[in-house]
Amino acid sequence: MNGAESLLRTALAAGIEVCFANPGTTEMPLVAALDMVSEIRAVLGLFEGVCTGAADGYARMADKPALTLTHLGPGFANGIANLHNARRARSPVVNVVGDQATWHLAADAPLTSDIASLARPVSGWVREVKSASTVASDIAEAIAAAGRTPGRVSTLIVPSDCLWGEGGGIAAPLQVPYPTVVADEAVKRSAATLRKSRDKAAIFLGAQAMRSSGLAAANRIAMKTGCCLICETFPSRLERGSIYPAVEKLPYFPEQALEMLSKFEAIVLAGALAPVAFFGYPNLPSSLVPQGCASETLATPEQDAISALQALADELGARDGPVLRAPVQQPQRPTGKLDSATVGQALAALLPENCIVMDEAATTGLPFFAASSGSAPHTYLSLTGGAIGQGLPCATGAAVACPDRRVIAFQADGSGMYTLQALWTQAREGLNVTTLICNNRRYRILQVELARAGISEPGRKARSLTSLDNPEIHWSRLAAAMGVPAVRVESAEALCLQLERALAEPGPNLIEILL
Amino acid sequence: MNGAESLLRTALAAGIEVCFANPGTTEMPLVAALDMVSEIRAVLGLFEGVCTGAADGYARMADKPALTLTHLGPGFANGIANLHNARRARSPVVNVVGDQATWHLAADAPLTSDIASLARPVSGWVREVKSASTVASDIAEAIAAAGRTPGRVSTLIVPSDCLWGEGGGIAAPLQVPYPTVVADEAVKRSAATLRKSRDKAAIFLGAQAMRSSGLAAANRIAMKTGCCLICETFPSRLERGSIYPAVEKLPYFPEQALEMLSKFEAIVLAGALAPVAFFGYPNLPSSLVPQGCASETLATPEQDAISALQALADELGARDGPVLRAPVQQPQRPTGKLDSATVGQALAALLPENCIVMDEAATTGLPFFAASSGSAPHTYLSLTGGAIGQGLPCATGAAVACPDRRVIAFQADGSGMYTLQALWTQAREGLNVTTLICNNRRYRILQVELARAGISEPGRKARSLTSLDNPEIHWSRLAAAMGVPAVRVESAEALCLQLERALAEPGPNLIEILL
Repeated sequence: MNGAESLLRTALAAGIEVCFANPGTTEMPLVAALDMVSEIRAVLGLFEGVCTGAADGYARMADKPALTLTHLGPGFANGIANLHNARRARSPVVNVVGDQATWHLAADAPLTSDIASLARPVSGWVREVKSASTVASDIAEAIAAAGRTPGRVSTLIVPSDCLWGEGGGIAAPLQVPYPTVVADEAVKRSAATLRKSRDKAAIFLGAQAMRSSGLAAANRIAMKTGCCLICETFPSRLERGSIYPAVEKLPYFPEQALEMLSKFEAIVLAGALAPVAFFGYPNLPSSLVPQGCASETLATPEQDAISALQALADELGARDGPVLRAPVQQPQRPTGKLDSATVGQALAALLPENCIVMDEAATTGLPFFAASSGSAPHTYLSLTGGAIGQGLPCATGAAVACPDRRVIAFQADGSGMYTLQALWTQAREGLNVTTLICNNRRYRILQVELARAGISEPGRKARSLTSLDNPEIHWSRLAAAMGVPAVRVESAEALCLQLERALAEPGPNLIEILL
Repeated sequence: MNGAESLLRTALAAGIEVCFANPGTTEMPLVAALDMVSEIRAVLGLFEGVCTGAADGYARMADKPALTLTHLGPGFANGIANLHNARRARSPVVNVVGDQATWHLAADAPLTSDIASLARPVSGWVREVKSASTVASDIAEAIAAAGRTPGRVSTLIVPSDCLWGEGGGIAAPLQVPYPTVVADEAVKRSAATLRKSRDKAAIFLGAQAMRSSGLAAANRIAMKTGCCLICETFPSRLERGSIYPAVEKLPYFPEQALEMLSKFEAIVLAGALAPVAFFGYPNLPSSLVPQGCASETLATPEQDAISALQALADELGARDGPVLRAPVQQPQRPTGKLDSATVGQALAALLPENCIVMDEAATTGLPFFAASSGSAPHTYLSLTGGAIGQGLPCATGAAVACPDRRVIAFQADGSGMYTLQALWTQAREGLNVTTLICNNRRYRILQVELARAGISEPGRKARSLTSLDNPEIHWSRLAAAMGVPAVRVESAEALCLQLERALAEPGPNLIEILL
């Protein structure tokens, strides 16, 4: 068989089920081979950032990698921003990047470039295939290197002659190592810390610790010791809602994060690194661990945080039991004016049980998190790497991974414009994604940042560069032009009505929230 | 003054007039400083590929660089594909990329990544700023390194503390070297070749040789020796139309290119490298110079091809004189069905004198080039690096550089979807761009490539991955939703009528050609 078929059959043997693709000429043998390997689903994205963002969303929900298929350096480059987010989410993703035929590289044809240099900053594993006969073992290694969640981004660069060339086989799947188990000593140290500091301690949750069983163990510990539970500012995947313990999110701005953490004598890191500021600001530190607060590592993001939390609960003699939490008001349907509070309230009130919320709603999204603490149980995904344009693609991939669950893309307008092509893929695949576009016609976060930088009265250009007015973007028309039924709402009542309707309809739809 | 102001004032002193920007938090000091340096125009793109493609188009028409402003690694990465095209066009472009504060880099905050590794494959010059006090000299060097056309891409990575920090000054512009003059010996060798091979020789034109004075000199030579004039398959900028000598374009597919060149004993390279195949195919060579055809370098793309052609004309004793060419039928307005032939004919018939045509119309665009050989004089820009998604941004930048000229973006639908956000920038800036979207609802070139690879009956997935049907994209609605007035046409007569109207209206507009 040729290299292309060998690649796909090996991937299939290793459990790969989906390929998010934007192929070009050099990838034609793989496109043809996809028809020979019927078990792998091919999903077309009209821009590579859609494919890589979808692979991230898929991995977060499926806990295994999909393939992405992109075309040489520039095609891969279009996918880098969302691979950056995938890297920060520790999502396993396997990129297959076509390249010029090995013997044609030296000609330096127009599309030739140094793909490996582009790939390294976002990949934990990079390899250039040398021959059709090694494609199978190369892709098997790429998949094993990507691992399971928490995982890595693997990038395999495949020259076209290694795809069309004969001599390929099917390689057996390689063992994917499980996360390492935490040493007893770390558990004992963390237990001592929590026993000493009790309600002056917090567990800082990341990675797997934010899944159901991690949260259950963390809840036992909190009930026993009185410690607080806090999660990363941008969780890759957090289970939330009425049946889960209340977890606070570390605030975005360093002043607020430092203030929150200043209450604590110690924080215990469970699947998270010690928190750092998203950006450096004059006269503010990089580290968000306040002076005088100890930081104790129970489990790194690469370790098995769930078993570590369970061991810690046992060590503390914490009993199993139901989630006990302060009574949370089930959010009520809002009325009146649309603003970030009423939008958050509407979504919190109406989100259906077992749905997936992808939150890239930026400043407009802030009130939603607190409002939805007692909502129906749901999965919360967020913008892990700060590379905006992740929401629509990631929601697309999550819907491919979980066809039986409703996905809600809670989306800012500015970020949404980076990868709006994802809507077309949702329409083509008939995915159950409801997109809420928060149309406030500005890069609101940048206006906040200008003010933080002391520019209280921005000049004409600063206003212009942070505004999406002039012309206004009509998002519901954009969506409809790409095959996604859409409406525009201008009141909280209309939002609630349309959201109820949209959540009940199969397939994708979009609500443009005019703020 | 702070580093940001120092950067902009130094850039202004070096002749920079425009900044195509998509800034983020780390670039806020530059956004604020743009209001202090009123002479530099700030143009917002809603996606970084719009900014870098616009900078390429601007450079091709202005023969000097603009700045691009992007946000850390992921923001820069979104601009790489069009920087790849700019690199292949040898366009001078100066990228300013914000980075984390120097002291915050070690914290490895979520948006941190290795920007230099991303920048090197598309940049001839890369530097990371170390202090506010060197920003001025760093940007002066970046601008000088970018040069003039033919030029390079320069990338300056500026940590945020070097922007907000005080201690900056204004550096004097550095000398930008002119292209080196070709040695007499190369002129004499080329003259000997042309004298010997006469009409069995071709001059292969690239870079500056495709400008008016290069073409005038090439025409003298062709009139004297009977040689043919051929240009690169994807010219960065070619002057064309009734007052210019007829120049054939080297065909895209290697079989056809080899066939065209097989007529010749020798080709003389003037501002172009020896032609190579765009892609490698089984049983076809990398080089498109046929066996038995000599290739003689008159001028490399980096050398002064115009003076070299003038010297060659003088050496051959070629007299100055008017362009004499075989009578070219002025194209007639087509009627009937819309297809690539009638679309090309309509555009060729109606293009206004002195307009700029940015051709990213892919397969649909093919007949236009031959049809427009005798059209009104115009400038032709094309997709130099093969990274699709260049047309709409490049047209945007060309319109910023040449506000008094009509720009026509002749655009395939598949490629157009990569960077459709450019339409919004055209609307905001009121640019005189008429976009023709060739909506054939497929990646037609990939369907051709599948057939070339022997797959005459593509399977379901191969058809799906090369089709933009299901759902159809409604381009005129997409454009209108971003503020660009648009119509859809379904006959050649309607296209002609709408094109006449659109070309006469100020500001941007779009015609969706339903094929």
